[in-house]
Parts: sequence; C-alpha cells; structure tokens
Amino acid sequence: MLIIEKFIGAFEQGDKVALGRLLKEVENQTPLGYEMLKQTISREGNSHIVGITGPPGAGKSTIITKLCQVLSKRGLNVGVVCIDPSSPFNGGALLGDRVRMQDAAKLPQVFIKSLATRGNLGGLAVSTADIVQVLDAFGKDLIIVETVGVGQVEFDVLDIADTVVLVTVPGLGDAIQTYKAGIMEIADLYVVNQADRGGADETARDLRMMVEESGKKDWQPPVIKTVAINRQGIEKLSEEIQRHRSYLLQAQLWQKKRRERNAKKLTRMLEALFNVKAAQYIESHREVEQLVERVREGNHDPYSAAIEILENMLKS
Amino acid sequence: MLIIEKFIGAFEQGDKVALGRLLKEVENQTPLGYEMLKQTISREGNSHIVGITGPPGAGKSTIITKLCQVLSKRGLNVGVVCIDPSSPFNGGALLGDRVRMQDAAKLPQVFIKSLATRGNLGGLAVSTADIVQVLDAFGKDLIIVETVGVGQVEFDVLDIADTVVLVTVPGLGDAIQTYKAGIMEIADLYVVNQADRGGADETARDLRMMVEESGKKDWQPPVIKTVAINRQGIEKLSEEIQRHRSYLLQAQLWQKKRRERNAKKLTRMLEALFNVKAAQYIESHREVEQLVERVREGNHDPYSAAIEILENMLKS
Repeated sequence: MLIIEKFIGAFEQGDKVALGRLLKEVENQTPLGYEMLKQTISREGNSHIVGITGPPGAGKSTIITKLCQVLSKRGLNVGVVCIDPSSPFNGGALLGDRVRMQDAAKLPQVFIKSLATRGNLGGLAVSTADIVQVLDAFGKDLIIVETVGVGQVEFDVLDIADTVVLVTVPGLGDAIQTYKAGIMEIADLYVVNQADRGGADETARDLRMMVEESGKKDWQPPVIKTVAINRQGIEKLSEEIQRHRSYLLQAQLWQKKRRERNAKKLTRMLEALFNVKAAQYIESHREVEQLVERVREGNHDPYSAAIEILENMLKS
Repeated sequence: MLIIEKFIGAFEQGDKVALGRLLKEVENQTPLGYEMLKQTISREGNSHIVGITGPPGAGKSTIITKLCQVLSKRGLNVGVVCIDPSSPFNGGALLGDRVRMQDAAKLPQVFIKSLATRGNLGGLAVSTADIVQVLDAFGKDLIIVETVGVGQVEFDVLDIADTVVLVTVPGLGDAIQTYKAGIMEIADLYVVNQADRGGADETARDLRMMVEESGKKDWQPPVIKTVAINRQGIEKLSEEIQRHRSYLLQAQLWQKKRRERNAKKLTRMLEALFNVKAAQYIESHREVEQLVERVREGNHDPYSAAIEILENMLKS
C-alpha cells in the first residue's frame, strides 16, 4: 500500500511524472492501475470532456494544438488523449500526431497522452474512459479526446464526451455523405477547417442546412470556419466549446452524462472480468476444453456450446 | 419446428426469399435466427471471404459492382455484405451504397445485404460473422464484405476475411499515412482506384515500396491499378483474389482461419449471453440494483462493484 499512497500523494499534488506513471499503469491494466482508479474516482467528474473527430487529413492535430494554446492562455488546465488507429499487431502509436502536437506538449498546463487502439478480441480493450478518468482526477479543466474514423471505437469514444466537435474540410464529397449518416448527427459543433480553400462556404452552408433540418431545439450546433494553421477561428471555437458547457450544465445534461459514464464503466468491467473467468474455467475443465475444440473444428455449433458453458459456470 | 424445417428446406434449395428472411432473423437476433444458425453451421466453411476496405469516396461500391459482374460471368455465386457506418440512433443504412450497387443486385447469382453498425453498448452487436455464415451455408462461392473506416469494427470485420483488399485513390496524403499504420499492414491486395487521375503511379509505387519493406515472404501483396467505372483492372483484381485463395489453401491457412472464426464465435456468444444474464441478475436483486445506483452516482467505484457482482453471480 505504501507505493500507492506515495503515488496518490504525488498525483494529488499535480506531479506530472506521477500522472504519466499512473496513465501507463492504467493503460497496461495492471492491478496497481485498477487500485488507483478506485482510489481516484471520487475526485472525478469535474472535467469538461471534448471529443474531436473527423477524417484523416482534416487538420485535427493542428486545431488541437492551437486550441491548447488558447485555452491555457485563459488559465485552463488541458489534457489531450489521442486515439490512434494503430495496427493490431504492433500496437504502436502514430508518430505523426505526436510530432504535430509538440508545440502544445511544451505548454506547462497541457498533458498529451497517445493511446493505441488494439485489435485484440480476446484481451481487454484499453479503455479510453479510464484514461480520461485519470486526467479528470488529476484536475484537468478540459480534456480533449481526438479520434479518427467512423467505426465502433469512435462511437464509444464520443460516448464519453460532453461535447463532440466534428472537423471537416471543404469539398470532401463522398466522405461528407458517409459522415453525414453517422457521426454527423451526434456532433455539437462543426468546424470547416482549411477554410481558405475553395468551397469552404458551400461546405459550411451544407452543414448549416443539415443542422437546421435535424430540428434540434435546445442546442443548435454552430458551424465554425477555421484556418487552424494561422490560428484563425480558434478563439471562436474555444468560446463555442465553453458555451456548450454552460448549456449542458443549465440543461442538467452534465450530471446525466456522468451517471451514464459510471454505469458503462461497470458494464465494461463486468464483461472484462467475466472473460477472464471464462478463459480460466475452460482451461481448468478438460471436457469443456474438448467441447471448445469441437467448436473450433466445426463439429459443434458455438451457440449451444456457449449456453452450456455459461450454465455450468453459473452453477459451479 | 415445422416452420424451421420448411425454412431450411427452401434455404437449402437456394430460395433467395428464404435466404433474405433468414438473414433478417439473424440480424434481429431472434431465437429462430439462432436456431437456424445452429442448423446450418455444418454447411459452412466453403466460401471464400473477401474483405474490401478503404476510405469513403475511394470507389469501393463501384469496384464491388464490377467485380460481381466479372465473377458471376465466371459462374461464381457471390454474396455481398455492406457494413454501413450508420448512426447509433437511427440504425439506418446508407441509401447511397444500395443505389450504387443496383447493377450488381440485379444479377441472378448475386445477393447483397446491407448491415448497419449500431452504436449500442448494452445490447448485442449485430454480428457480421453470423451474416457471413448464412451466406456461406447458402452456398455462396465468394462473399465480399465491404467496410469503411479504421476503427475496431473494421478490424473485427477484416478478421473474418480470408483475403483483405485495401482500396485507395491517388493523392490521399495524410489519409495514406493513417491507413499505413493500421489497415495497411493487414491487406493482402492493394488497389489504386481512379488510376486515370494524376499521382496514381506515385501512389502505386509508394504502396509497392511499403509492401517490400514489410518483408512478407510467402505472399507478396500485389498492387493493382483500376479505373473501376470503366471496369479497367477488375479482371486482374478478380484473378489476384483467386490466386490468393489458392495460396491460402496451399499454405494451409484456409483451415486455420476457419478454426479461429469458430473459436471467436463461441467467445462472442458467451459474452453476449453473459451480458443478458448479468442484466437479469441485477434487476432481480434489490441490493445489487442499489449498488449499481451508487456506482452511477459516483459514490461507489465500478471496479470493486463489478468484482462483487460477478462473484455473487458465479456463486448463486
């Protein structure tokens, strides 16, 4: 327990090294990591969690870098979590993002964590929610979660966020179509980046039309044009993010989100623990292992095998 | 049982209506659907499953349409599963894909199924593997699974595939960078579509360099330039897909894949069943419900709550 208390002490005093170490423990899903998640949960729930998404090449990293600068000038402590669509084999993160965000990482009030999305089915998936929780407990005022793509991971990540920002660029054509059907509807703010390129006004107009058609009443998602590389529009973006926070608090959606997040953590943890137990159960029962082997060979259907295994597990 | 036998009979005789109905049952995860999955599993394992992926707008739908035409001319029965990155709220599929693939859907030897990826965490995710299994049991020689994005879903889907085709277009810049780190490495064939546009040769060269650097020995993924809209390069693509199939059979990877697929079906089914049981358990125990409520409110940590709930479930 000594090591935990020392850790927690340093962590609570805002020690960045302790933060980095804790994040690593949680990422690697060590017992120490879980113990510390447990001990810090009461400190959690105050950060404003902002999900930033959009297609590769839209300039998300640049926007985040500039946003960090603006926010820390305003005295806010910022955490950034970059979800990398990395390989299921090497688990490695994209060097590119880290390089691009170097300017932000240098700021004393900013902490950046890259997280690889692994393709492992058997093991426990690294939980973005847990990483965010650590930064939250550390006292970050605002946590940016950056993600790419339109898969399940993205929805899971955006599910954590209080505020979802969708970044696009002029003239994405078919890509817009695709995003429209998915992420588009759940965004709270739209950014047309590289707005100095042709077609920016049309893209912004299309987005505004879409927002109006969606008929959202209480919060009408604004469409903001930015040229992130020149910091153009970033102040405005930062203001709109703050405005959305006020809206959430006022509409009592802030607390609702936190309740949902906690419930999901429980569900996910339960599932993860069950998977471990199931693997142990199979390994330690020869006849169950043989059943699993028959399923593998295609000589037994997996559906009734699953029912049988679960029933036996709950009985034993 | 009568209805099942009738179904199975029609299904085994190649009745497309029975196929459509069965797919619907499986998609909706009805008891009938599971019963039929069980009964058809022995007929499964003969289809060549080809995953086609790439960024939105790369022309995947066009390539698939033309590929269906070429393959059915060769006498092959083809199934297509389109994974739509659809909204977690409406669960709707992209109309666009369906419209674009109409030419293929008209062919008597082709069956197209659109599948929405839903963002639901609590419920059971619709299983692409199950949909593929039905088409497999129906006697499709080749099943194309189309997907978009770089998230977990995509890895899961590509995990099913015997052959992974990555479609890209000239000059994607940053997008290529991103894909490189993820999907890039797991593809067995690369397609540079819209190869009549500038930069196609450079993109193809970059891909070839990447393939060579990766140092794969037994199978060197070919890079194929296509202009799908004119059917240019599609014959070649179809030949390379067949060649990869021969390679898999010869290297005994074909059977290995099927074993892995079956094992994963079992794992997934077990997890799904457990989630249902866990929800029932919580609902029917007042003190557990109260514990869950304390977790929601942030007054109890989800980690120790999960351990407590699982231990009680396994005991009872």
